[in-house]
Amino acid sequence: NAQDIQGPRFGKGILNISGKDSTWSMNFTTRFQLLGSGTWQENQDGGTDFNSNFLVRRARLKFEGFAFTKNLTYKLEIGLANQDIDGASYYTDYADKIIQDAYIQWKFYKNLSIKAGQAKLPGNIERLISSGSLQFVDRSLLNKEFNIDRDIGLQLLNEHYLTPTFLIREQLAFSQGDGRNVTVGNMGGYQYTGRIELLPLGIFKNDNEMEGSALEREDKPRLMIAVAYDYNDDAVNTQSNRGDFMGIEENLYQTDITTMFADVVFKYKGVSLLAEYANRSAEDAIAKDDQGIPTGDVVRTGNAFNIQGGYLFDSNWELSGRYTHVDLDQEVRSIMEENQYTLGVSKYIVGHNLKLQTDISYATFADQSDMVMARLQLEIQF
Amino acid sequence: NAQDIQGPRFGKGILNISGKDSTWSMNFTTRFQLLGSGTWQENQDGGTDFNSNFLVRRARLKFEGFAFTKNLTYKLEIGLANQDIDGASYYTDYADKIIQDAYIQWKFYKNLSIKAGQAKLPGNIERLISSGSLQFVDRSLLNKEFNIDRDIGLQLLNEHYLTPTFLIREQLAFSQGDGRNVTVGNMGGYQYTGRIELLPLGIFKNDNEMEGSALEREDKPRLMIAVAYDYNDDAVNTQSNRGDFMGIEENLYQTDITTMFADVVFKYKGVSLLAEYANRSAEDAIAKDDQGIPTGDVVRTGNAFNIQGGYLFDSNWELSGRYTHVDLDQEVRSIMEENQYTLGVSKYIVGHNLKLQTDISYATFADQSDMVMARLQLEIQF
Amino acid sequence: NAQDIQGPRFGKGILNISGKDSTWSMNFTTRFQLLGSGTWQENQDGGTDFNSNFLVRRARLKFEGFAFTKNLTYKLEIGLANQDIDGASYYTDYADKIIQDAYIQWKFYKNLSIKAGQAKLPGNIERLISSGSLQFVDRSLLNKEFNIDRDIGLQLLNEHYLTPTFLIREQLAFSQGDGRNVTVGNMGGYQYTGRIELLPLGIFKNDNEMEGSALEREDKPRLMIAVAYDYNDDAVNTQSNRGDFMGIEENLYQTDITTMFADVVFKYKGVSLLAEYANRSAEDAIAKDDQGIPTGDVVRTGNAFNIQGGYLFDSNWELSGRYTHVDLDQEVRSIMEENQYTLGVSKYIVGHNLKLQTDISYATFADQSDMVMARLQLEIQF
Repeated sequence: NAQDIQGPRFGKGILNISGKDSTWSMNFTTRFQLLGSGTWQENQDGGTDFNSNFLVRRARLKFEGFAFTKNLTYKLEIGLANQDIDGASYYTDYADKIIQDAYIQWKFYKNLSIKAGQAKLPGNIERLISSGSLQFVDRSLLNKEFNIDRDIGLQLLNEHYLTPTFLIREQLAFSQGDGRNVTVGNMGGYQYTGRIELLPLGIFKNDNEMEGSALEREDKPRLMIAVAYDYNDDAVNTQSNRGDFMGIEENLYQTDITTMFADVVFKYKGVSLLAEYANRSAEDAIAKDDQGIPTGDVVRTGNAFNIQGGYLFDSNWELSGRYTHVDLDQEVRSIMEENQYTLGVSKYIVGHNLKLQTDISYATFADQSDMVMARLQLEIQF
Repeated sequence: NAQDIQGPRFGKGILNISGKDSTWSMNFTTRFQLLGSGTWQENQDGGTDFNSNFLVRRARLKFEGFAFTKNLTYKLEIGLANQDIDGASYYTDYADKIIQDAYIQWKFYKNLSIKAGQAKLPGNIERLISSGSLQFVDRSLLNKEFNIDRDIGLQLLNEHYLTPTFLIREQLAFSQGDGRNVTVGNMGGYQYTGRIELLPLGIFKNDNEMEGSALEREDKPRLMIAVAYDYNDDAVNTQSNRGDFMGIEENLYQTDITTMFADVVFKYKGVSLLAEYANRSAEDAIAKDDQGIPTGDVVRTGNAFNIQGGYLFDSNWELSGRYTHVDLDQEVRSIMEENQYTLGVSKYIVGHNLKLQTDISYATFADQSDMVMARLQLEIQF
Repeated sequence: NAQDIQGPRFGKGILNISGKDSTWSMNFTTRFQLLGSGTWQENQDGGTDFNSNFLVRRARLKFEGFAFTKNLTYKLEIGLANQDIDGASYYTDYADKIIQDAYIQWKFYKNLSIKAGQAKLPGNIERLISSGSLQFVDRSLLNKEFNIDRDIGLQLLNEHYLTPTFLIREQLAFSQGDGRNVTVGNMGGYQYTGRIELLPLGIFKNDNEMEGSALEREDKPRLMIAVAYDYNDDAVNTQSNRGDFMGIEENLYQTDITTMFADVVFKYKGVSLLAEYANRSAEDAIAKDDQGIPTGDVVRTGNAFNIQGGYLFDSNWELSGRYTHVDLDQEVRSIMEENQYTLGVSKYIVGHNLKLQTDISYATFADQSDMVMARLQLEIQF
């Protein structure tokens, strides 16, 4: 129609806006995920318990671009789905946690940038990959247990070439350490995070190490090896800056929590591989009140390993597999060990922007009966 | 101004965006309603109690269009007003229920479509008509008591002509059955809904059977007769998939709930008529705990009848009237019977997109004194 | 790029949309603030308590324009940050208070306008100035204690010239009086507000009396003197239509609350000055239950004075100072008197639209040790 406005290609945003005199730009977009899942688990009577769940799993609005100078970029991302905005508490003014990202990034010298605001911390690769660009229906159990999510503070980013093809990226973060959308100020100490990424074989096309699968079909082998270290001084949550606040009467139990990650991404043609290791430890994992009596809260310490890979056919159908092993420390909970085997099939209709993914998982536990889980998810992002 | 962007006609959305290479489209719009109301009711002392209420009654953002192929359409609608987003509970992760609609619809064969996600169920016509296209300030008491709102699942839609003018539309839904924005998975059984619509005299202009009043001024008489049937297996809410969760200790009381609707829409020139009947029954309406002791929760069973009509003058002023009778079953609550007589005046300045509506209602009850209610509402939708 | 859309100048909105046939317009924009702050206060052991707080202080979306006729304008503004949306209670359907403004304004005769919906009340100037256009990181303590924020109802606006340069503006408001986003209807009585503004030396460029600093650099001295009066009949909150609801068992304590403001704005070249006085009184400030026993809630009566000024250098760096004195009535709380001295430095990179502001404050109290507060804030608005 005459009054139609021209938008970008599918998946490149809803609107690409360029401010007058090119003093700013904005890319605005939205996306949502529809998920259906079912689980089967043997119960104590020998029968099988079946549970199903239909969800609008995620729904987001995103604004990003540059302001004033191309060296000053920003991002505002908000969540709308109930699982995106839950977790209201005293610490968040009892209000929904709608804001995901809200930051400014300033490239102030060569490749050196500073990022201020609320953003993902430089933790494990699975968490850094957008939930809209995953290879399976959702992230692994390693991520669920150990990721360090978003926080508010400052981040310093750099990258440089060791050789003409060997790229190194460094990221340092100084954060409040209590999780996203906290309004009551810093509790306990601060959180310090570092991540270093080595790309010895050259950079990935369009930074596709930051998305699942092998949709860019690299002509040559591409590899990223990274380690991340996170120290949360006097942390007050059971999972560093996530999980539950460890309350003791009018106060919070505090203990130093260290989380470490190592991860590898490899891609070549239709093949993609991702492996991760995570480890969390705490100075004293058992929360105690002022009299030294355990409160029941415990820091979820332990370690986990995840490996996943897939092959993308020319038809943009993908077959993928994943193995995850989570081993929480014995003192922190009864379910100590879990293995999960997942088989996934994805049809990337318009890349990650319109895709249908299904996966089936088989999980074994140390102290309960095995579980089978099947999921089907549709993702649409403009 | 030079930097102004061209939008569609008033009421056709804020932006009509067409993706590059026509691979997607989006219509983005917003709307809100401002409502003032007052009620007068005799109190026990013989005086009159007056209560007033000023509200931003609804405020919505809406995104819809097609993706990849014109046969694949989507809709994302979110609510912002407090009455749109309330109802946070354990079952919704204690988070606001911001998402109204989030679905994908695929026309996969001729007129046959499948819809996946969260959407309105094919229940009574009043509920299917958008809250922005009503003939009165708000829907009737029949709707308030018996409608089956939105849910998440799959819907199958079809339409076909019996004769060159006699259209039949069928809609089937399979849903979780616990209401919108639930995050904890399916509780009790699933919900099954069917609706069939007969349009013996030909189709309405621009599908205006799906809006109140007679703004399209049909040249020839147009009629839609429909019936809907809803069976919620092991339902856990007092109004099928709405109302209150019927809790018993750590669990929920479950009972099969059946809701039935019959409705008629007739339009010809400035005349519009709408009549509805609703009936709800339950296997055992009285919620009981494991010992068989009533918990106090009851399924709101009973029936209701609503008839409304209006005449739209050439000046786009409309005079309308409504009579609603609600008769809840004796065992389910004390206020058993209610009659409401409503007289409405609407000025459609730009159709439903900019309108001022007022109505005055007189209600009689079986066991309390009569009530008068006056309301004034302004609606703006782009 | 070919598919880029042209937006306005930086700070003039993201999109300026003009509906087909010029029947409506919309300016859509967003903004957010990133704040870091620290406080130092001597504790009882003679040491210093340090507290820090990193916040996404505000994040907003805004839609405004005209509809049908240029005399009918509207505004919808929503908040997303946790401090913008908090305060969920029984009175707001336990839902987040996302909507800030939602109103329609109709200029129906000459300069006479009526505004309907939820909007800022015509109280003190500091509150009327947008939180995105402040001279310091945040508003003063006078505002925090005494402002009357937003409410829902009707406002009548007028302006007329006494002489060719002497402008007078009047604003009257009739409101529900219980604060924004209330869903349960009017409690207690209504709220009545009036504000009159005198601009004896001519109007400010682009209405810049409604923003902090002197970015418009007036060639000639400009002055606005205003008084505002607010009477909240049978108010139910500790700060008129803000603060805490004064609950007594199943009911609310009600008392008449009067709030008065006087304020002055002066600007000339790089110089800006703002002074305010506020006073709140109540018929009976001590909330009592039905037996006359104090409930613990008290209306925060008292008075305050605030004066602030700045000088904007040619480089768009500004040096500013502020002195605030708050004196709550003795019976209403223990901290009776507070003086705050603030020194601010702002760099307006693109006016208020992209700015970095820092301020340091020194506060003395009647009954606790002095406090130092330092803040740094980045604001970006499109």
